[in-house]
Amino acid sequence: MNVFSSEPVSAALIERAGAALAAESARFASRGWMPGTAGNLSVTLARDPLRLAVTASGLDKGELTSSDIVIVDEDGAGVIGEGGSEQRPSAEAGLHARIAAKAGAGAAIHVHALAAVTAAHVWPGGVVLRDLEMLKGIGHSAHGQDVVIPVVDNSQDMVALGDAFEAVYRPASPNSRDVPALIVAGHGIYAWGADLREARWHLEIIEGLLQIALATRR
Amino acid sequence: MNVFSSEPVSAALIERAGAALAAESARFASRGWMPGTAGNLSVTLARDPLRLAVTASGLDKGELTSSDIVIVDEDGAGVIGEGGSEQRPSAEAGLHARIAAKAGAGAAIHVHALAAVTAAHVWPGGVVLRDLEMLKGIGHSAHGQDVVIPVVDNSQDMVALGDAFEAVYRPASPNSRDVPALIVAGHGIYAWGADLREARWHLEIIEGLLQIALATRR
Amino acid sequence: MNVFSSEPVSAALIERAGAALAAESARFASRGWMPGTAGNLSVTLARDPLRLAVTASGLDKGELTSSDIVIVDEDGAGVIGEGGSEQRPSAEAGLHARIAAKAGAGAAIHVHALAAVTAAHVWPGGVVLRDLEMLKGIGHSAHGQDVVIPVVDNSQDMVALGDAFEAVYRPASPNSRDVPALIVAGHGIYAWGADLREARWHLEIIEGLLQIALATRR
Amino acid sequence: MNVFSSEPVSAALIERAGAALAAESARFASRGWMPGTAGNLSVTLARDPLRLAVTASGLDKGELTSSDIVIVDEDGAGVIGEGGSEQRPSAEAGLHARIAAKAGAGAAIHVHALAAVTAAHVWPGGVVLRDLEMLKGIGHSAHGQDVVIPVVDNSQDMVALGDAFEAVYRPASPNSRDVPALIVAGHGIYAWGADLREARWHLEIIEGLLQIALATRR
Repeated sequence: MNVFSSEPVSAALIERAGAALAAESARFASRGWMPGTAGNLSVTLARDPLRLAVTASGLDKGELTSSDIVIVDEDGAGVIGEGGSEQRPSAEAGLHARIAAKAGAGAAIHVHALAAVTAAHVWPGGVVLRDLEMLKGIGHSAHGQDVVIPVVDNSQDMVALGDAFEAVYRPASPNSRDVPALIVAGHGIYAWGADLREARWHLEIIEGLLQIALATRR
Repeated sequence: MNVFSSEPVSAALIERAGAALAAESARFASRGWMPGTAGNLSVTLARDPLRLAVTASGLDKGELTSSDIVIVDEDGAGVIGEGGSEQRPSAEAGLHARIAAKAGAGAAIHVHALAAVTAAHVWPGGVVLRDLEMLKGIGHSAHGQDVVIPVVDNSQDMVALGDAFEAVYRPASPNSRDVPALIVAGHGIYAWGADLREARWHLEIIEGLLQIALATRR
Repeated sequence: MNVFSSEPVSAALIERAGAALAAESARFASRGWMPGTAGNLSVTLARDPLRLAVTASGLDKGELTSSDIVIVDEDGAGVIGEGGSEQRPSAEAGLHARIAAKAGAGAAIHVHALAAVTAAHVWPGGVVLRDLEMLKGIGHSAHGQDVVIPVVDNSQDMVALGDAFEAVYRPASPNSRDVPALIVAGHGIYAWGADLREARWHLEIIEGLLQIALATRR
Repeated sequence: MNVFSSEPVSAALIERAGAALAAESARFASRGWMPGTAGNLSVTLARDPLRLAVTASGLDKGELTSSDIVIVDEDGAGVIGEGGSEQRPSAEAGLHARIAAKAGAGAAIHVHALAAVTAAHVWPGGVVLRDLEMLKGIGHSAHGQDVVIPVVDNSQDMVALGDAFEAVYRPASPNSRDVPALIVAGHGIYAWGADLREARWHLEIIEGLLQIALATRR
């Protein structure tokens, strides 16, 4: 059953997801955050069993069509026969699936933004942000509380990367929202949200926060 | 009575203000100054009593329509029954109203520009500018006089923020124009003018001046 | 007699010049080099007597029409009755005229680019460039020769500014082309060429050279 | 015989190559990587004998048409009577031909990107990259191996520049792909690939890598 309704994942839903992923990919490509064929985006289609629509691997992210998506399962492996293309899913699909499962993300965006890679180099143990208004944009207080954007080591093993994500991810508590982002050192950033638009908002906010952190560091 | 004519605030005026606010919001969003749903703009519709059209809260600033505005009073509270939408006004509407009342602004723009936040971090007591041609763009001398862009602490209390603005605001005197901008530390910048276009000009000029100040600091 | 033919300056020529100035102004505005109403462009229409079409003062440089130009004489003063609008010419028209007269410019562009102001702050005696390929783009050798982008102090007196320009301007010699640019400290940059396109090429090249100079300085 | 089929180089192939070169040139011009008339692109049309379509010299790279190309031979000299325009080929055509011959490039792009010139200034012996995910975008490992973007001295002698390229170029071995890029100090960067799109991907990736290298240097 899909996350949007009680219907099974339909061709129309997949088409809509593909169109949205293509449009958002083009937006990030135009900002220079998708060099080469880098970066990938996903939308969670269903939760039981988990199904994501993920952008296909090896394509120019400024030129995707709504068909350039692959349906993957909770391991990020392509699922045959449930719609989408039979292209190779993005190598990082496994991490997208872990984020969808663990953090409940409805959509996730992974880009190679310079500020994220630079910040992870400067603060490999995590980027501590505090007393910045934009923290409200990811659901945190603008005053008096540290918010840490977690940093994990890069890996080509998506299981290892997923485990690293789960080790640093702190779910929402009665006192605090979670942090909808993860920096992979030497690589880039993941941000997520309830849907693609909110994922983009979170990405823009965190990129802005990281730029401020870098510009004002001692 | 509205500020443009002796007529009461008409639906046509509100529609015009909403269209202008949406267009300018999209402009700033495309420049990256409206990350997430951040930033807000206002137009002063009437002065007796004070009425502003303010962008609605929580929306993508690149996708506003002319209906995505709220009419607020001198406290920034939404006014029902005088037109505009019944959405929630921007949280900062109260400061927009204080700026309209105190500085006589016909329009104000609040964005999360990096140079402003960085400059406030470097010069928390105010950014002193001197001997720069662009100072003429905000009505000051390009030679031999200090012009200070005031900086106030961030707050979620719009009354406190309005009081802080009034404490640092220096009205025009026979010797000097006022400064049509305010930096809120850890947050962003407000700029204003007689109308939305002049408010944008002032914002562009001050952002340029702050970039020069940062690039040439010792 | 105009510089393009043996005809007197015709309405059609002025219209063409106005359209070209509006298009190039919009280009620079979109690059952020025309904050507020800053910056101005000119085309030399005739040399005997000297006549320039200069962008009008106080307008948004992203929104000019072909009518938003003023015909000025060798002092930069508006000429009535020879076409163009009766708006106020840009305050810097006098320096444009001096550049047209002294350097033989067919067109000149003045923008408030950050690299120029920063470079003038770092090297107030002039920016020395050497061993850079892009020097060829302004007619100089890419190897073994210093090329100096002159810097003069800012002034509101266009006669003083014109005199300062003439004092630092070194005409082409048998050994060297001239340098088609002038930085005004705390203000911005002028670049010029045989026509508007070449003036733009020279501006782009020099802006690029100044960015390299700043990024590689010790 | 052309590289795409067993047919001789046809007018249709040349027209297609010209259109692709014009489109990609405009893309790079809009990014500010083609200041003035700088930069040039090529497509390899045939290998026996070697023929390239190269952008013509002295034109605005944002305004090329599909006719603004020249057919050149293995020395970068214009070939008459085989199609294309009779304009002057880019001065750097000789280096494009050497890259096509030695590295087997199907297309090459040369731009004046700031990060490349700055990196060559900082690391004149070559830019060492390591442990960065984007290295995968040029076919290398993201972990544990140094990848060197070679740097050569600038020269106006294309034979000397071609010899310098061949001296630093290390072909693919059983253990490693080659590096599809060359920085010319004080000048700019060349990147290449199997076709224009891959050449662009490589350029974007390497520019991104150089920006990271500069932002994280000690």
